[in-house]
This record gives sequence, C-alpha cells and structure tokens, in this order.
Amino acid sequence: MPTNFADRLNIAVREKQSCTVVGIDPRLSQLPAPILERHPNAFGDLAVAADAYREFGCRIAELVAPLVPAVKPQIAFFERLGPAGMAAYADICAAARKLGLLVIADVKRSDIGSTAQAYSDAFLGPVDGGQAGFETDAVTVNAYLGSDGVRPFIEAAKANGKGLFILVRTSNPSAGEFQDLKHEGKVVFEHVAQKVKEWGKEVVGESGYSSVGAVVGATYPEEAAVLRALMPQTPFLVPGYGAQGGGAEDVRPSFNGDGLGAIVNASRSIIFAYSREPWKQKFGETEWEEAVVAATREMNEELKPLVS
Amino acid sequence: MPTNFADRLNIAVREKQSCTVVGIDPRLSQLPAPILERHPNAFGDLAVAADAYREFGCRIAELVAPLVPAVKPQIAFFERLGPAGMAAYADICAAARKLGLLVIADVKRSDIGSTAQAYSDAFLGPVDGGQAGFETDAVTVNAYLGSDGVRPFIEAAKANGKGLFILVRTSNPSAGEFQDLKHEGKVVFEHVAQKVKEWGKEVVGESGYSSVGAVVGATYPEEAAVLRALMPQTPFLVPGYGAQGGGAEDVRPSFNGDGLGAIVNASRSIIFAYSREPWKQKFGETEWEEAVVAATREMNEELKPLVS
Repeated sequence: MPTNFADRLNIAVREKQSCTVVGIDPRLSQLPAPILERHPNAFGDLAVAADAYREFGCRIAELVAPLVPAVKPQIAFFERLGPAGMAAYADICAAARKLGLLVIADVKRSDIGSTAQAYSDAFLGPVDGGQAGFETDAVTVNAYLGSDGVRPFIEAAKANGKGLFILVRTSNPSAGEFQDLKHEGKVVFEHVAQKVKEWGKEVVGESGYSSVGAVVGATYPEEAAVLRALMPQTPFLVPGYGAQGGGAEDVRPSFNGDGLGAIVNASRSIIFAYSREPWKQKFGETEWEEAVVAATREMNEELKPLVS
Repeated sequence: MPTNFADRLNIAVREKQSCTVVGIDPRLSQLPAPILERHPNAFGDLAVAADAYREFGCRIAELVAPLVPAVKPQIAFFERLGPAGMAAYADICAAARKLGLLVIADVKRSDIGSTAQAYSDAFLGPVDGGQAGFETDAVTVNAYLGSDGVRPFIEAAKANGKGLFILVRTSNPSAGEFQDLKHEGKVVFEHVAQKVKEWGKEVVGESGYSSVGAVVGATYPEEAAVLRALMPQTPFLVPGYGAQGGGAEDVRPSFNGDGLGAIVNASRSIIFAYSREPWKQKFGETEWEEAVVAATREMNEELKPLVS
C-alpha cells in the first residue's frame, strides 16, 4: 500500500529539517569545466551533451540527498537535447529516487482527459502493469483545460501514492496577464486555487495535507498570503527563490506556521553556485561540488525558521 | 531563408486540396494485429512497444502523405513509453517531414521564459547551431503563463520559419471551467485570443496569415465563430473532429471563406479506422492501411467545400 505523497513529503521535510527543493536545470554553457572536459564534443553532439547532463544531474542528486527532501528536474532542458536528453532525464530521476529523494518532475503538462491520462501514466505510472516510462513521485500540471485534464493525475495520486502541483500563481513577470483577470470579484488564479482545494480533498493524508499541491511563485508574496489562507491543506511548491529574485521573507507567507505547507525551489543559484558570488570567490570551478553543498546548506539555514 | 510557416501551410492546403491533419496518437491496445504480431512482448516491454509505435506512426505518415498537408503526433502517448517512446516520436516526425508533410508537434508546453526557450529549441530549433532535438514545423503551446512563456516560440517562428498554435478554446468537456470566466465583458479565452492576434502581427506571411495560430475546438462552433471574427489572420488548428464528436458543420465557422483559415485534426477516427464503422465491415484488420486511406479520403471529401 503506497503512502500518501503529502505524508511522504512532510516526513522528509521534518527528517531533513529542510524545505529546499533543488531544481536540476542543466544548461550546457554553464556546466562546470570538470564535467565538460569529460565530455568533449558536448557542444556539437546532442548525445554527448546528454551524457554530460546525466553525469551532472546524478552528481547533484548525490550531493544534496543528505540535505534536502526533494529535487525537481526540469524536463525542458533535457527535451532540448532530443531522445538522448530524455534518457538522461529518466536516469537522473531513477538515481535520485534510489538515493531516497522525492522527485518532482517539472513538466507542466496539460491536455484533454484521454491524453492527460497518457501523461499521468508517463510520470506517475504504472504503464501496462509495470513501471512508468519516467517514474517520479510528483508532477507539475497546467490546469487551463479544466477538471478533465487534471483528473488522471489525481487518480494516480490516489492509487499510486503520487502527487501533483497545479500551476496557480507562476513566478514569471507576465504571470498576471491571464492569471489576474477578474471574474466576480476573484482573479483567475483564485478560481484555479478554489478548484485545487476541492480536488485536493480526495487525497488528504494523515498529516492533514493533500497530495494535490499548488505552484505559487515566491515573486508574488502578497498573492501567496491570500492563497495560503484559501487553501490551508494544500502544499505549495514555491519557485522563484534565488536567481529569479525571491528571498526568505518572500516565501514566508506560503508556510502554515506548523513548519509545513511549502517547499521552496532553487535551481541556478544552487547547481551553478560555483559561478556566482559568494561561492565563486570561495570555490574554484573544480570545486563546483563543494559550492553546491555550501549553497544548499545556506538556503537551508535561511529557511530554517520556517520549518522548525 | 526559411519561408513563413503560415505560407507553407497554406500552399500545402491548396496543393492537396485538403485541410485535414492526421493525429498520430498510438494506443497499444488499439494497434492493428499485423503491427502487434511483428512486435511480440509489446505489452510487457516499453522498448518493444516503442518499436511498434514507430512502425505504426511511420506507416501512417506514408499512407496519408499524398492526401493531407500535415500530421500531428501527440507526444503524450510516446512519453508514456519513456525514453524509447521519445526516440520513436523523433523518428516519426523526421520520417513525416521527409515525406513532405508538415509536422505539428502536439506538446502543449508551457513554462517561464528561460525554460520556454528550451522547449522552443527542442521542437523549433536550432540547438547549438545544429538541428533541434525533436525537429518539427510547429508546436502547440499553453499560454497560462502569459507573454514571456510564449515569446521564445514566436522568435523561433520568425527566425526559423516555424509555427505555433496557442490553446485558446480547447475541445474537451471541462474547457469552460477557466476559459469561460468573464473579465470586463470578455471571457478568458477571448483575452487569450486578443493576445494571440497581437503576437501574430509579427509573423504574417505573404498569404496574409500569421505563423502564430490558435487551437479552437470543433466541439464549440459558436465560440469558433466569435474567435474567427476576432482573429481574421490567425490560422486555427481545430481538434475534436470525429471521435470527439465534431462534424463538418461544426468546423465551418473556423474557416475564412477563402478556403483557408483552419486545419482540422482527426486522430482515432482515421488511424484506428479499421476498428470503426463503416470501415470495420468493409476492411478486415489486416487491411487497416486501406481503412486509414479510405477514412482520410472521406474526411477530405466532407471538408472539401470549405477549402475550395
């Protein structure tokens, strides 16, 4: 009997005393030299580039596994490399899960019901009785198509102990263009939040949280406070910390006061920490791994008051 | 110098006298026996299943290449099979393009700007100066994140002669849950349409149509009429014909009266025609290829008044 995803997440947050999610978003030009040197021709050959991503992503997972509850590999960067990139993606997800990390596939998929079922199978399984094509613990989902496009993911959450995070308020500058349109006194993202809350009631775990979560950007703290009040049982996946500009104060409204309620993602500021201050000065490019660990520890420290 | 996508599409529609788009959406349990027999263990082995999908998809492309302007492989069904499925997807797209078909990657991707760039690279290229990871002619895009999530695809349309179709009004039963919320007298999907129109102005071809298209479901003909009037230069990709219930009268409002303006997708009713009446009675399962051709010709006939 698989445990509820929200319960698994909350246990991991408590155990690690960390709400940090490390985003695995490789970009070829930013990979540290020691990785690139082992993969000559990575810039001209997608399969070689995918090998470099695989090594980098698996190493990131090893480095952060003792420190954080979850990683969030962003599939777009792997898709960019074609089929070889997708194979690397699957391998990194599998390696991270083997290390005891929860893996959130950042895929932002959306489609009509029968097609959404295929996406759900792909990441939340099972496929034909066996393992999913890309077995992970949770996915991000875009709900523009409404309930029938979300339903298969909810069913997988119930049947397989998986989770989903539905885009409510995204972290990007143009997020408000459609999300802020106002209908009967509530903006679109509040209407989405209302549905997320309803859908979530079906998959509430022993910790009181649902396996149907919400993506709520760190870059809009006021909206986060409104959403936190609206959806008390919904776990928030909070992107936008670090490179996108959000800080510890910006993510505070996403928490519930019980040390739970939100997990906070940082990608570039951790995985490429070696190329950014203060780590750049402290660690050389050959010590990129130490920089990853140091940046992760620092983020844990910054957010510690929120999880304890 | 690559030709504008909308021009390429319109030339193909005129040449083939067809606005039919064949959706390549394989489902293992519905593949015809002759394909399954050549791939024993397809139900227990994702790589074998992917081989079956590859053969089926490539054969579909060969069968319909003389008859239609474009195919639309749905990536979810391939993603379901993991990395091997994605390799089959890439091969089918490449084979179809080699046959002169335009390939619309139905991926409905969405993300923040820097990540959307990676998705755009993946399908509309180029990647590091070479070919895209999954080289196709156009993609479907979900605009919930607003302009910055759409911008990379528009830039690729301009630079590489590619196209995109943005989800405006989807064909599924719950489409209206968020798309019908009303802001200042206009529903959300009309606000999206307004943006699609604006974005499209940057990529208008010699035919007067833009390479920034819209997805407008056949199952909502009244909305299609409103949208057609709102976006006269926008090509519509119309799903929902056939298995989802739309007929020729339902897609008429999506056309412009000049024989252009819309392309109409059918998937299951064509690729699995052998298992559906009237073709089931006429062709045996071993003649599934004849059924594909017959169903495609029939759909062309039904829609002929709209394109000539």
